[in-house]
Amino acid sequence: MLSIKEYQEKFVAFLNNYSTVKEPQTLYNPISYILNLGGKRLRPVLTLMTTDIFNADYKNALNAALSIEVFHNFSLVHDDIMDGAPLRRGQKTVHEKWDVNTGILSGDAMLIMAYQLFENYDANTFQSLAKLFSKTALEVCEGQQYDVDFETRDNVTIVEYLKMIEYKTAVLVGAAMRMGAIVANASKEDQNNIYEFGKNLGIAFQLQDDYLDAFGNPETFGKQVGGDIIENKKTYLYIKALEFSAEEDKQKLQHLFSINTNESKDKIETVKQIFISSGSANATKEAIHNYTAKAFSVLELLNISEDKKNLLNDFGNSLMNRNV
Amino acid sequence: MLSIKEYQEKFVAFLNNYSTVKEPQTLYNPISYILNLGGKRLRPVLTLMTTDIFNADYKNALNAALSIEVFHNFSLVHDDIMDGAPLRRGQKTVHEKWDVNTGILSGDAMLIMAYQLFENYDANTFQSLAKLFSKTALEVCEGQQYDVDFETRDNVTIVEYLKMIEYKTAVLVGAAMRMGAIVANASKEDQNNIYEFGKNLGIAFQLQDDYLDAFGNPETFGKQVGGDIIENKKTYLYIKALEFSAEEDKQKLQHLFSINTNESKDKIETVKQIFISSGSANATKEAIHNYTAKAFSVLELLNISEDKKNLLNDFGNSLMNRNV
Repeated sequence: MLSIKEYQEKFVAFLNNYSTVKEPQTLYNPISYILNLGGKRLRPVLTLMTTDIFNADYKNALNAALSIEVFHNFSLVHDDIMDGAPLRRGQKTVHEKWDVNTGILSGDAMLIMAYQLFENYDANTFQSLAKLFSKTALEVCEGQQYDVDFETRDNVTIVEYLKMIEYKTAVLVGAAMRMGAIVANASKEDQNNIYEFGKNLGIAFQLQDDYLDAFGNPETFGKQVGGDIIENKKTYLYIKALEFSAEEDKQKLQHLFSINTNESKDKIETVKQIFISSGSANATKEAIHNYTAKAFSVLELLNISEDKKNLLNDFGNSLMNRNV
Repeated sequence: MLSIKEYQEKFVAFLNNYSTVKEPQTLYNPISYILNLGGKRLRPVLTLMTTDIFNADYKNALNAALSIEVFHNFSLVHDDIMDGAPLRRGQKTVHEKWDVNTGILSGDAMLIMAYQLFENYDANTFQSLAKLFSKTALEVCEGQQYDVDFETRDNVTIVEYLKMIEYKTAVLVGAAMRMGAIVANASKEDQNNIYEFGKNLGIAFQLQDDYLDAFGNPETFGKQVGGDIIENKKTYLYIKALEFSAEEDKQKLQHLFSINTNESKDKIETVKQIFISSGSANATKEAIHNYTAKAFSVLELLNISEDKKNLLNDFGNSLMNRNV
């Protein structure tokens, strides 16, 4: 087993070798650009690590790991168009640096290239990987669509919200790990369990993201604290606060989430106060804890050594403590 | 063997069975809409017919045929966004009926769904189909990118133009037929040859489209005659006319293709006159003839009965005479 940092380095070396310049450059240069913007490469690292965990060589999983990363970046390019986002990892988004049409077409090409990376495997592995990939990719599209739909709805339930983040974010984490297990020829049972571990950890991570957006340390969170509140995003915190609040606070919250104000400092403070007083902040912490615990409980079921279970446990903990 | 009309009917029945309503409807309704706008379903018909030609049951090819049709419609949805096209088959385009974001995301989902249809085949067939599909789909993206790039270039050569229409249009026709051959377990040699037949026929068909756009019968062509001239599209006719014309006509042509005029009737007449006098119209007819002849010559190499060769010959002829 390597360390997280070593998996990252091995992956980036493989990625650098992949990003060759092809014709037409107007199609392929934006792909090179987005793939090389950096990031922690968490998903592909999970694929490589999982292959090692199931006693195969992580090198066999490099193509599957790259497929996950190419797909993830495809979804960023298309989502950034839909959100009208100007920046990604502090750099211009593809549709800003080039244009919307380039973003659409280069994204399409990336989705296809993600499938092509499975061609490096034998027919049975190819089919298993591609099937999982298609199912997951379609769920990611569905999750993105729910996210778009929720913007114009004011009756989103917690169940719907959880399904949205599961599809939009968590299933890809689960799939990244399951691909590592597929490459390692792990049993179906182990494949299912490692998928559940990744998926539940992914949900916990996303809920934590919601929480830290309001209550995180501005110096370590990495994004603007209060960003979701400024953008009137209906996160877990917001939906739970509506559920728990009496009529007066509920109306105040709904009003605050219907306006765009320049006085964002006051708005953020008022909203955070309601998140706390309603019990929503605590409920969110509890949900984070529960999904993390659910993920860890699945580890027990895996047919791997205790050492390796501990490794996954440590990884989960440092992810939730945001040290990776 | 069935007739073209019968293959169309069998295919549409299969398609109608496929288009079920799924959640979120905001994602899947546009997919249902575009798939049911109609059209001649030529590509999937070619897949079914080819499976029969190679002595298997066309029914085995229905999923592959549907994959080709779903992909084709994916490319229409995204191309229509890029072209800002308001209408498709006389109805509103997806991004007009809904919005651009819906067009992007529903298109993405269709590309994934096209791959999923291969899951109905065994692992080896799945891999062969998906590999061919990825290669072809990426070429279609490249062709679309060349087409976009050519709009702002005034030195496009005939070789570049031919590559563009081959990628954007013809390879999908070739792939549709090759998929039919793969499902029928035809030899690699037969697979290659039927692909070349379809591809060359596709190029001939597209060149004929360029020709008919200027010189077709308004009552039977189906599109507005002169449409390419109004839109300053650099087609085979235009590039050849530039190549063949003396300086004066060349400048006149370049000027006419740099302006947007409401006096389109005069412009169309003048341009057509130069297409004829320069010899470009004849050169285009010759190219159509050559690509058609190239397609037919490949038929000789196929390991199938003379009857079946005649069927493909008849199909090619009626396609080029636009009776199908």
